[in-house]
Amino acid sequence: MSFKLTILGCNSAIPTIKKNPTAQLLNADERFFLIDCGEGTQVQLLKNNIKPHKISHIFISHLHGDHYFGLIGLINTMHLLGRKTELNLYAHQKLKEIIDLQLLASNTELRFPLFFHPIPLDKEKVLYEDARIIIHNLILKHSIPSSGFLFKEKKKARNIIKEKIEEYNIPINEMNNIKNGSDFRLEDGRIIANEELTTVRKSLHSYCFCSDTAFVEENIERIKGITLLYHETTFMQDLADKAKETGHSTTIDAANMAKRGKVGNLLIGHFSSRYNDLNDLLEETKSVFPDTFLAIDGSVLDFDVI
Amino acid sequence: MSFKLTILGCNSAIPTIKKNPTAQLLNADERFFLIDCGEGTQVQLLKNNIKPHKISHIFISHLHGDHYFGLIGLINTMHLLGRKTELNLYAHQKLKEIIDLQLLASNTELRFPLFFHPIPLDKEKVLYEDARIIIHNLILKHSIPSSGFLFKEKKKARNIIKEKIEEYNIPINEMNNIKNGSDFRLEDGRIIANEELTTVRKSLHSYCFCSDTAFVEENIERIKGITLLYHETTFMQDLADKAKETGHSTTIDAANMAKRGKVGNLLIGHFSSRYNDLNDLLEETKSVFPDTFLAIDGSVLDFDVI
Repeated sequence: MSFKLTILGCNSAIPTIKKNPTAQLLNADERFFLIDCGEGTQVQLLKNNIKPHKISHIFISHLHGDHYFGLIGLINTMHLLGRKTELNLYAHQKLKEIIDLQLLASNTELRFPLFFHPIPLDKEKVLYEDARIIIHNLILKHSIPSSGFLFKEKKKARNIIKEKIEEYNIPINEMNNIKNGSDFRLEDGRIIANEELTTVRKSLHSYCFCSDTAFVEENIERIKGITLLYHETTFMQDLADKAKETGHSTTIDAANMAKRGKVGNLLIGHFSSRYNDLNDLLEETKSVFPDTFLAIDGSVLDFDVI
Repeated sequence: MSFKLTILGCNSAIPTIKKNPTAQLLNADERFFLIDCGEGTQVQLLKNNIKPHKISHIFISHLHGDHYFGLIGLINTMHLLGRKTELNLYAHQKLKEIIDLQLLASNTELRFPLFFHPIPLDKEKVLYEDARIIIHNLILKHSIPSSGFLFKEKKKARNIIKEKIEEYNIPINEMNNIKNGSDFRLEDGRIIANEELTTVRKSLHSYCFCSDTAFVEENIERIKGITLLYHETTFMQDLADKAKETGHSTTIDAANMAKRGKVGNLLIGHFSSRYNDLNDLLEETKSVFPDTFLAIDGSVLDFDVI
């Protein structure tokens, strides 16, 4: 299973010309999960060549505008583009009221089923599960109720060796079977064993999104050993008091979370617009946790290579 | 009085990378009126160097998303930037509910007074008036209730002759008095007559915004002789049936409105995204009304020179 994360927006609070508010797209083996949807997300999807109709599930962390003001526009566009397939929305209950009211005001009856799944505020639960992936919420700590999201691959998929596709002329519709462990039968009847065609990854991919939030001690156990942690770093450490007061995290908070959770890599974002040079935040975070990246609009992280 | 109109967005329904949904900024002698506020308007304001705190009045034509989905983001940004001065919002009643619900969900108590003025759906009235300008609503015809806006200069302002500013070293704080007809007293006591310092414009500026709407016969009288008419042209004439069915106008509808209203100039916009070359719409409109311009994101129309 491949995990690819596209950063659609990384800024906090107020969008700028170059930096959009929070939105990310996790492509988990062609399942498209949108995480948060700040204003302008639909245009960011266009810029990154991601077709809205591919998105099947949307997760909204909390109801501050920089995390959801683009959602109604995206839903409206899906409707206007003639979407028929269902869309699943995971968010706090109040969002359903807001969307319903906006659809009512424009006299819009959606052409596709929109299933709303309220996220519990006081406990973790499985939000989504299929044969290959399981998704939980995490309880975050912010000025209003806020949820993190933990995406875990359930079953190791095998990777097909590229040269073998050409050598045996393997058709596309056989790929998934082979990835799942099947042998391949040639036209002359010969059987090629799966072990000859594939390699297997050492570990399962996993991703956790934590924003907006202060440092939450209890979540360290939950993120233990995951491939990639996205953790907000609204402020640098000298503004630790302001972070505490507003329910946000500093660079060092995020780094400590990553370090104590023994995660593979850390991705930081949701930067206060007071910072012109994001490398200052990166360097401070790396002083505690070296394997850190900046979330920059338009960047793509492939979990097979980080 | 100067009238300058900045086009912030001209597209219909679905935003693209280059074309934003409807929003316009009318600067009437440093009174900043925002007309409609599609998603992304706050970033368009940034790109066009218009500071949000300057906007005192916002007019929303109707509650289809491409005309207001950017409003809550703009209000939120004004709040975060510490705005204290009042904001006046003119829209259909339902918008107040939507905004109140969104502010409640984020636990936001605005730092500035937001005065909501419902627009009547079945009659025209004065929405705003001061010594220099008067603004009415117009009743449009669309699939949901929709309002046009008519901005009329009330009193001819005189224009100061640039060379005279230098010759007599006229300070900025005297400009408005001179524009309003006052003489100017030099430091040595001499009085310079207003007629020597100024010229007077031939006519009063006026602007009417009509979108979204079908052709409305009754409004021809209302726009008679205005300086500039903005009229939507969602479709070209070959799609007249589709225009009728959806409550929109064609190029020829807009041109006929301008011609029969004997307006000075016509500005067309709200183009369906099916049109790649907007010049096709422009040429068709010009075949009936030659003094037509395209509304293009980022363009500025100065009423003194059109």
